[in-house]
Amino acid sequence: MATTSSNAASSSTIDLAELADSYRTIRAFTTTLCEPLEIEDMVAQSMPDASPVVWHLAHTTWFFETFLLKPFCPGYKPFHPQFEYLFNSYYNAVGEQFTRADRGLLTRPTVAQVRQYRESVEGCVNEFLAAGRFDDAASVRATVELGIQHEQQHQELILTDLKHLLSRNPLAPAYRSLPDVAQSSNGKAATNSVATAAPIRFVDFPEQLAWIGYDGDEFAFDNERPRHRQFVEAFGIANRLVTNGEYLEFMEVGGYNRPEYWLSMGWSAVSENRWQSPLYWTQRDERWCEFTLDGIQPLQLDAPVCHVSYFEADAYARFAGLRLPTEAEWEIVASQTPVEGHFAESLRLQPGPAADSGPIEQMFGDCWQWTSSPYIGYPGYRPPSGAIGEYNGKFMCNQYVLRGGSVATSRTHIRASYRNFFPPQARWQFTGIRLAK
Amino acid sequence: MATTSSNAASSSTIDLAELADSYRTIRAFTTTLCEPLEIEDMVAQSMPDASPVVWHLAHTTWFFETFLLKPFCPGYKPFHPQFEYLFNSYYNAVGEQFTRADRGLLTRPTVAQVRQYRESVEGCVNEFLAAGRFDDAASVRATVELGIQHEQQHQELILTDLKHLLSRNPLAPAYRSLPDVAQSSNGKAATNSVATAAPIRFVDFPEQLAWIGYDGDEFAFDNERPRHRQFVEAFGIANRLVTNGEYLEFMEVGGYNRPEYWLSMGWSAVSENRWQSPLYWTQRDERWCEFTLDGIQPLQLDAPVCHVSYFEADAYARFAGLRLPTEAEWEIVASQTPVEGHFAESLRLQPGPAADSGPIEQMFGDCWQWTSSPYIGYPGYRPPSGAIGEYNGKFMCNQYVLRGGSVATSRTHIRASYRNFFPPQARWQFTGIRLAK
Amino acid sequence: MATTSSNAASSSTIDLAELADSYRTIRAFTTTLCEPLEIEDMVAQSMPDASPVVWHLAHTTWFFETFLLKPFCPGYKPFHPQFEYLFNSYYNAVGEQFTRADRGLLTRPTVAQVRQYRESVEGCVNEFLAAGRFDDAASVRATVELGIQHEQQHQELILTDLKHLLSRNPLAPAYRSLPDVAQSSNGKAATNSVATAAPIRFVDFPEQLAWIGYDGDEFAFDNERPRHRQFVEAFGIANRLVTNGEYLEFMEVGGYNRPEYWLSMGWSAVSENRWQSPLYWTQRDERWCEFTLDGIQPLQLDAPVCHVSYFEADAYARFAGLRLPTEAEWEIVASQTPVEGHFAESLRLQPGPAADSGPIEQMFGDCWQWTSSPYIGYPGYRPPSGAIGEYNGKFMCNQYVLRGGSVATSRTHIRASYRNFFPPQARWQFTGIRLAK
Amino acid sequence: MATTSSNAASSSTIDLAELADSYRTIRAFTTTLCEPLEIEDMVAQSMPDASPVVWHLAHTTWFFETFLLKPFCPGYKPFHPQFEYLFNSYYNAVGEQFTRADRGLLTRPTVAQVRQYRESVEGCVNEFLAAGRFDDAASVRATVELGIQHEQQHQELILTDLKHLLSRNPLAPAYRSLPDVAQSSNGKAATNSVATAAPIRFVDFPEQLAWIGYDGDEFAFDNERPRHRQFVEAFGIANRLVTNGEYLEFMEVGGYNRPEYWLSMGWSAVSENRWQSPLYWTQRDERWCEFTLDGIQPLQLDAPVCHVSYFEADAYARFAGLRLPTEAEWEIVASQTPVEGHFAESLRLQPGPAADSGPIEQMFGDCWQWTSSPYIGYPGYRPPSGAIGEYNGKFMCNQYVLRGGSVATSRTHIRASYRNFFPPQARWQFTGIRLAK
Ligand SMILES: [Fe+3]
Ligand SMILES: [Fe+3]
Ligand SMILES: [Fe+3]
Ligand SMILES: [Fe+3]
Repeated sequence: MATTSSNAASSSTIDLAELADSYRTIRAFTTTLCEPLEIEDMVAQSMPDASPVVWHLAHTTWFFETFLLKPFCPGYKPFHPQFEYLFNSYYNAVGEQFTRADRGLLTRPTVAQVRQYRESVEGCVNEFLAAGRFDDAASVRATVELGIQHEQQHQELILTDLKHLLSRNPLAPAYRSLPDVAQSSNGKAATNSVATAAPIRFVDFPEQLAWIGYDGDEFAFDNERPRHRQFVEAFGIANRLVTNGEYLEFMEVGGYNRPEYWLSMGWSAVSENRWQSPLYWTQRDERWCEFTLDGIQPLQLDAPVCHVSYFEADAYARFAGLRLPTEAEWEIVASQTPVEGHFAESLRLQPGPAADSGPIEQMFGDCWQWTSSPYIGYPGYRPPSGAIGEYNGKFMCNQYVLRGGSVATSRTHIRASYRNFFPPQARWQFTGIRLAK
Repeated sequence: MATTSSNAASSSTIDLAELADSYRTIRAFTTTLCEPLEIEDMVAQSMPDASPVVWHLAHTTWFFETFLLKPFCPGYKPFHPQFEYLFNSYYNAVGEQFTRADRGLLTRPTVAQVRQYRESVEGCVNEFLAAGRFDDAASVRATVELGIQHEQQHQELILTDLKHLLSRNPLAPAYRSLPDVAQSSNGKAATNSVATAAPIRFVDFPEQLAWIGYDGDEFAFDNERPRHRQFVEAFGIANRLVTNGEYLEFMEVGGYNRPEYWLSMGWSAVSENRWQSPLYWTQRDERWCEFTLDGIQPLQLDAPVCHVSYFEADAYARFAGLRLPTEAEWEIVASQTPVEGHFAESLRLQPGPAADSGPIEQMFGDCWQWTSSPYIGYPGYRPPSGAIGEYNGKFMCNQYVLRGGSVATSRTHIRASYRNFFPPQARWQFTGIRLAK
Repeated sequence: MATTSSNAASSSTIDLAELADSYRTIRAFTTTLCEPLEIEDMVAQSMPDASPVVWHLAHTTWFFETFLLKPFCPGYKPFHPQFEYLFNSYYNAVGEQFTRADRGLLTRPTVAQVRQYRESVEGCVNEFLAAGRFDDAASVRATVELGIQHEQQHQELILTDLKHLLSRNPLAPAYRSLPDVAQSSNGKAATNSVATAAPIRFVDFPEQLAWIGYDGDEFAFDNERPRHRQFVEAFGIANRLVTNGEYLEFMEVGGYNRPEYWLSMGWSAVSENRWQSPLYWTQRDERWCEFTLDGIQPLQLDAPVCHVSYFEADAYARFAGLRLPTEAEWEIVASQTPVEGHFAESLRLQPGPAADSGPIEQMFGDCWQWTSSPYIGYPGYRPPSGAIGEYNGKFMCNQYVLRGGSVATSRTHIRASYRNFFPPQARWQFTGIRLAK
Repeated sequence: MATTSSNAASSSTIDLAELADSYRTIRAFTTTLCEPLEIEDMVAQSMPDASPVVWHLAHTTWFFETFLLKPFCPGYKPFHPQFEYLFNSYYNAVGEQFTRADRGLLTRPTVAQVRQYRESVEGCVNEFLAAGRFDDAASVRATVELGIQHEQQHQELILTDLKHLLSRNPLAPAYRSLPDVAQSSNGKAATNSVATAAPIRFVDFPEQLAWIGYDGDEFAFDNERPRHRQFVEAFGIANRLVTNGEYLEFMEVGGYNRPEYWLSMGWSAVSENRWQSPLYWTQRDERWCEFTLDGIQPLQLDAPVCHVSYFEADAYARFAGLRLPTEAEWEIVASQTPVEGHFAESLRLQPGPAADSGPIEQMFGDCWQWTSSPYIGYPGYRPPSGAIGEYNGKFMCNQYVLRGGSVATSRTHIRASYRNFFPPQARWQFTGIRLAK
């Protein structure tokens, strides 16, 4: 498993006890996220792109079993002979996979049995790390770190997949009450009439031969490397995200019905799916509301627009006479910005207005920011060999890079060099718009 | 609601207390069927044609609420304002319906809440019937009877939809242990080599101007009426159902790969779906097994072949140089045959071999028998007016009539004039083959 | 080829010279039909159910080559080695077939080459029949007769497939000028406001044990036999077809938007295809027009409604409080009615108003009449063995019987026992509505 | 139409008579390409991505009518009122478009009528240019130049769409005889056993801040501008294209069945479409052949592999332990390489072996070369305003850049900065593989 070492060149500098601690903390947060859920909510799958919560629970455990315990822990006996197949997401090197679109049919193992699976594997991992006798310590550490990061990614997916599922129910059930959201909507949003956010300002950056990519000595994904040079022309970047109120202006000029704003594929997506607003927006008594993890709430005009596709982000930018930033531009700005914002740990779970207190805000948390950059490997990038090489590399096609994390991302998971990616039509993640010029 | 009276012209002859008793008995059997299930099993939907168990639980309750309590019980207050929409199957006269293919997304109401819904409505029905003060007693009785029969139909669907769902799980979970099946498979089937059933015999019937359709004074569906005359030529009917062993002969001559046996649409179905055996058959170590409600079991060669489409039944008959019976022929025979066989009440839930003890066997229970008759209204048939008119009439197109009930049908539900119907490609019901000539 | 003898039990009574003459006449009519066409029109395929004209030309020739010359004419050498594959429609016993939906891709053989193919095969057939030396004269005669009838069926398809193709062109090109149609539309239809047809009358027939099916000694298809008895209750039949004006009343009450008139599958078809009128109807300047083989013409209100599906015919009947006739009822009436009406030979090619001059009109010609009878084999029907057995038998599933022929059917092709069949959603044939009660 | 001036900043330097001459030459070449075709070949459409030849003929004429004559030629009267709609490809600013996938249904206007349309518009253009009285000469010149380039692009599509169409015909008809191809296949390819091409060599280039994009003063597309700087690391580029023989090695190790070589989307494409070789390859008597514009020919092992998707190009590169070049790398190399190779003017129409006579070969002509660069706008790129702005900009999503032209590209059309683009699954263009490292 030497292949994962590239993911964490310096993992040896991390204390093992600290790593084990981190492991337990992250695993516990998964449990926290599931607390408000009924068993029913955990089984259903709302679309092929989403997975049932119980599947996420099993798959993140499968990851530790498959990539840590089986190769590194002598004498480990698999929990169940068929779980390797059932909970493999897409690793062809591990073997065949159960059909993705059919995950919602797996009513067994039950939620209780998956919890036993989690506990069993966690117990083994804890013992294994506590014993601390590894032939290949670097690989063990790298794998545990990767498994932790992987679990955090699936925590975000648990929230977004669940939001999508609940939104399809005419009863519009709430996942949990989100006091911050209700509070602010009692304030500005309650009137639901005028956007009060200060106008966007642009911060200028000079042309430069920039170094892009991760260069620290903590964990980073393979796709953040190699660090390399890119020539970037002078640019300006918006000081905050585009708000719901601003996006409404685009809708009010008929943005969804005017092909001149759209990429050709975007226009097809609008037509075929009859998009007329961001995902989750809905009108009640002629006022715009949106489905949130706390059910349907009035639309907060000064909060960032969220759940838009790349096509909508791009069309909005064209409407505004501006453009989306490239990922290099974004990273230049972000590498000079503190990692602050609304993250998953707070369980706020709904993007909020910019505080308007700094030069550049909302770079992290709130909404993933679509960049204009297709997702490709950096110069010199080679995926690691073996199954782990399938983690990122094979998805570098027809996707766009998103940056910055969201309210569903953990603060401990995000950084300036972090590259998320989704197809341009995806809307069920917490995705928003930052403008550039 | 006078329109339902045609369904039960003589319902006034049934004692009200007896009816209330029957209501409680049938409702309790639904609960019995759900006992072995995990909550997870009750939520998932394996295909658009099938529904989640919890949906069946709610819909059968909705039926009593919508057609009995709302129109007939003064002062009744609906349990939940949106259930009318959520649990309406296809009654346009009642209103819009939640998308059928998305029933598996309804994780709320939860199973527990649906059980409360059932209890609440049951309580009201019991009180209402106990009070016995109706303006229109005949309609009340007819509606209760129809609701009972409807619940029994959904009991069968609970079993068949569940079987389909569990079969899609690679773990092949058992719904419950079926001792009779295991027992017999320890016997004859264990060898899985030779069919020991005595050869099929044909019983002859002379040509006749037959009366077809229900003519009793108990409950029957509108589609069993009007009783009318049909001229039927002399025919012979097989004394028992076609067995798995006999069907294997068809497979062994390459039946699934020889177009000459198939209707044109059947051949398309074989090609597109890559059918090579009945649904649920699977090979283990070069022996044929089948998925049952008790998991995967060796194929019992002298048991009737089951889970075949009309296309397969028709192709087998052509292979055998014979044909399927018309529904009139079947009914002539059945009306002279006692209603005996394997039914749902026994919880056997898997068809068994013919006892070879009477002139004509397996007319009832075991497997629904495909007839060669497309499902159309009898001469003079008019669907009742109002929502109940949508129960049967609007489905008289591109379906075939099946007769006799199955192991998943209740003994108290079936009769000689009973007409079931499914599209010719359907395989997930307990459907088998009786030959005629 | 003894198997085709059942199609023409008495073909031996037909004079051979007469048969050869008939062959030449029918073949020449195919040429007549193609005269107004550009090469471009002959190549295109507008949908999988339709075929290019040039394909029809080749396939009808293939039929004589495959079923007459190859088996019966010693020393015959096939015109082209791949035509057996290219122009086989659906005869699995002959071999594999080129994909039906891709017939529009066959730009070679060219139209000129297909004409050579026709001439070559025609020459051989003429010589073969002139020589008159057959080992099996009955089979030869039966095959020639079948080939003639087959060619006539494809003549109708040439017209209907072509009409569909031209209708898809925004230029709405005319196939040929149809003086009768323009003339009558200058008359009554020009006002396009009121239906002037006399109200429908119903003619009564008593209950009877009727003989149904062909019993003459001329050609009839296998599916018209065996002649057999059916018990038919007393019924009334409309004296003429439903007119465009009457059908407009159904549309004006919102017929296409009211589910209570529709079969469940019909309602799905309406919703999915957004049907709001018969095929080919279109509004110009707020007046209803229809696309005809002479381009777009004002709708003639007293002409029969045409190009409706079974679903629309059934819905209209329900709206009218009536029903469609069964095929037995229709045949009882038709067998007492002279075969008169508008047929293909006249090249009128557009249905016209009833003359209102007889007790029952429009039984033949004008529009195929949807019956309520699913297309199944008559009691005792067995398809002939061999490839010819695939002509009719394998399509007996999910189709409805139509009776009477249309303006695109030849007078010499139709008779009271003739059974046409199409799926209930088909609209591109000349199909109309006769009511019964 | 000032907006197109950016396409040809210096078009004023071109002599008007020269431009008119060029116009006539290019238009005449379109006619030359159509000479071998039957009318039938010109009407059919083999897939939604391809268009009928006659449509290309009309659309390229529509382009001059719409963008030159209508806005710039006073008093011009459109040839036909509906052609604006019928032959608009995708310009929403011009108006609605006839459904792309249905172009094969347009049997009218006929080929003869489209030829009249061409002659009529050509006459007007010739007169207009000869008169030479323009209010806005720069825009006129720019539009004529754009129309000429546009016509050349459609000349390539005529060939590739036609090849696809003819390939679907089991008769495998030849478009024209290609002596060069037959000749070489009589030589090396006849043995069809060993690749005789000398091994690929790599030519090294140092890291550099390169200027990329067009900087001349002749015509170039908007997407080749603005010229800008990109930092490029040191790289090596293959001296020639990958050959059929080399690609066979990939197939022989099971390349199409080993997921480790493929992008995730590529693996899906392989599975869904059952790709097992490049498009047009076929086996005859256990030898590989390929369908060419001269019918089926033995595969020439030392000729470049052609008709591969981006997925196959990428998989092959991974198999070879190498990668595809970026478009910047390719352009650095190409800008130092003479524009020589096999082009459309020669009517060779089939890629040929490298001559092995220079340092870097086959940079132009033969096969479009997939680069690893997604198709995006260069820094500072803004599409022109107006309809012409839809020419390139709106397609910058989910496509990959191809460079260098092919045997179906005109020598006068291609240059080092030229950017072609297709979705990664496209195979019907002449697309091949150049490796980099
Ligand atoms: Fe994962
Ligand atoms: Fe129901
Ligand atoms: Fe035919
Ligand atoms: Fe174009």
